[in-house]
Amino acid sequence: MNKTFFTPGPTELYPEVNNYIQQALADNICSINHRSKEFMDFYKMTVDNLRLLLNIPESYHIFFLSSATECMDRIIQNCVEERSFHFVNGAFADRFYKTAIELNKNAEKVEASYGEGFNFNNADIKNNPELICVTQNETSTGVAISPDNIYELKQRHPDALVSVDIVTSSPYIDLNYDKIDCAFFSVQKGFGLPAGLGVLMVNDRCMDKARFLKSKGASIGSYHNFISLYENAIKHQTTETPNVLAIYLLGKVSENLNKHGIEEIRKETEAKADLLYDFFDRHESFKPFVKKKADRSNTVIVIETPDKQAEVKKSFSEIGMIVGSGYGKLKESQIRIANFPMHRIEDVKKIIMAFNS
Amino acid sequence: MNKTFFTPGPTELYPEVNNYIQQALADNICSINHRSKEFMDFYKMTVDNLRLLLNIPESYHIFFLSSATECMDRIIQNCVEERSFHFVNGAFADRFYKTAIELNKNAEKVEASYGEGFNFNNADIKNNPELICVTQNETSTGVAISPDNIYELKQRHPDALVSVDIVTSSPYIDLNYDKIDCAFFSVQKGFGLPAGLGVLMVNDRCMDKARFLKSKGASIGSYHNFISLYENAIKHQTTETPNVLAIYLLGKVSENLNKHGIEEIRKETEAKADLLYDFFDRHESFKPFVKKKADRSNTVIVIETPDKQAEVKKSFSEIGMIVGSGYGKLKESQIRIANFPMHRIEDVKKIIMAFNS
Repeated sequence: MNKTFFTPGPTELYPEVNNYIQQALADNICSINHRSKEFMDFYKMTVDNLRLLLNIPESYHIFFLSSATECMDRIIQNCVEERSFHFVNGAFADRFYKTAIELNKNAEKVEASYGEGFNFNNADIKNNPELICVTQNETSTGVAISPDNIYELKQRHPDALVSVDIVTSSPYIDLNYDKIDCAFFSVQKGFGLPAGLGVLMVNDRCMDKARFLKSKGASIGSYHNFISLYENAIKHQTTETPNVLAIYLLGKVSENLNKHGIEEIRKETEAKADLLYDFFDRHESFKPFVKKKADRSNTVIVIETPDKQAEVKKSFSEIGMIVGSGYGKLKESQIRIANFPMHRIEDVKKIIMAFNS
Repeated sequence: MNKTFFTPGPTELYPEVNNYIQQALADNICSINHRSKEFMDFYKMTVDNLRLLLNIPESYHIFFLSSATECMDRIIQNCVEERSFHFVNGAFADRFYKTAIELNKNAEKVEASYGEGFNFNNADIKNNPELICVTQNETSTGVAISPDNIYELKQRHPDALVSVDIVTSSPYIDLNYDKIDCAFFSVQKGFGLPAGLGVLMVNDRCMDKARFLKSKGASIGSYHNFISLYENAIKHQTTETPNVLAIYLLGKVSENLNKHGIEEIRKETEAKADLLYDFFDRHESFKPFVKKKADRSNTVIVIETPDKQAEVKKSFSEIGMIVGSGYGKLKESQIRIANFPMHRIEDVKKIIMAFNS
């Protein structure tokens, strides 16, 4: 039986990925030199399509790293001398906090209960941080933060850099990049690509911070410090031999998403999310984990299935639908249903029907 | 016309890679969870095949990173508190040295002229280094170092960790891992795979050093510190979502190379290298860059083509053979011919015939 992956990432491949891979093989994309004109041409194609799709201003620099986790590592190295602050509402926000601790920074955090958002108005940001980290869409809990809350945070802390994790909300989420300082995602989520590429977008304030730290004699990392990333990016190259195929595929999928139209994708995403939340809000035993509607992610939908989780997953699996387990301590009492551009509304309806039967 | 890439990497794909990719797509390798049994099973298959192919002792730990350049970054972070020493005989050895400088270490180096080896007996290793870095096969110059020289170096400096860059000599090079401490390569060279995966092999002395540094309060990096890499590796997992497809493909290619037999591969490599060096040693105008036979790499063969380089490359390209340019300042006066397991002796003969015609 064909399987359809509704897992929050790695997930179902975007439908054209198979064809793009065949094209890449036919065109020797994996054999060409990564300093060649051919490489630089499709690097530029990828960046251009991403800018259009996500509405990233020209003032932002786009860097290709190996994972979203690496993005966290490099952001801390390049934007923090001493103090970072983290809004922690799940495992991935906590990974960012731990990254700062592991890099010997003075990292502070405010924690939300799992499945809940923050009261940003009362947030006690103690340590005059150089960087504030927000996980806009927390993959482990299905909690999303409204971009407006992030912009207000930035307004209240204009001297801090604000980093936004959009790992599982991109390309759906509509961010105003002028009101933040950096953002990052990985491609095995909403872009439906094989894993192994992280995309980091930074503005000149981040670049200035990296240059300032370096001028003070601090280490901002080696081959993937922002200065090295920038100097290569303006040539449409990378510092090291990168995941060439992934950069190519990201460009092709972004081009395809642009043809479909980002507004249409957003509408479809919301329609599918509404179907799922409406259904589970009325379900007598399986309820959305995130109670407050304003805190709910439209792209990662977490449902409580207390002692029936294995049974639920199995019944889906029998109709070829693979959903994710809960994350960490909630692994066995929840399911997570991803809602990305490649997930079709017909399949969402199948999931709902399977629950009803 | 079909092209055959004799470039030193990215290079010609190993012939079965296309089929393995089709199999991976059919088996949803890019959609499965990277904590699933299915992933762990082929992770183990990859590690088992690599151990067999390269004769890596069980006492070594194998880590999957994103590039050889990242391997350098992580080795410095985890094995050096203050002092590293580098044998620099080309651009990639220099990249390792610069990595240490960028990470604020006290790095010293001895430099060989481009195209020459070292006199290891007289090497003045000044700063009582914690780590000595040797580029066994320098991709930029085609200079190789005999493993025996590296083992003797280790004997003379038993307290230092010895790191060996085998980026473009693996799987050909036969290393005795008991006589060094760590080694690394990337997969887009001798394994003929799409770029985007670095493989780092470390012994327990490296692990102990990382633990010691951490216990002293030094930062050994975040998600890719050796302790985190180790704790995941023993579960057949990675810290972050890795380049899943590349780990799968590396296992399949290694399995295939094992079927062919590493001894046979070594013999074939040497036969092809002999053909090329013999021919160019007798050529009246195009000569091997590395004059001393003992210093010559069998896997990256660099030929001086002073004012004829563009012409030579073009004439190859007309028969579908793509060779590399020289590296850096020698870009336009040399060609580099890779000699990896997927490069067939018939094609090597074609290159020679093209020169003769």
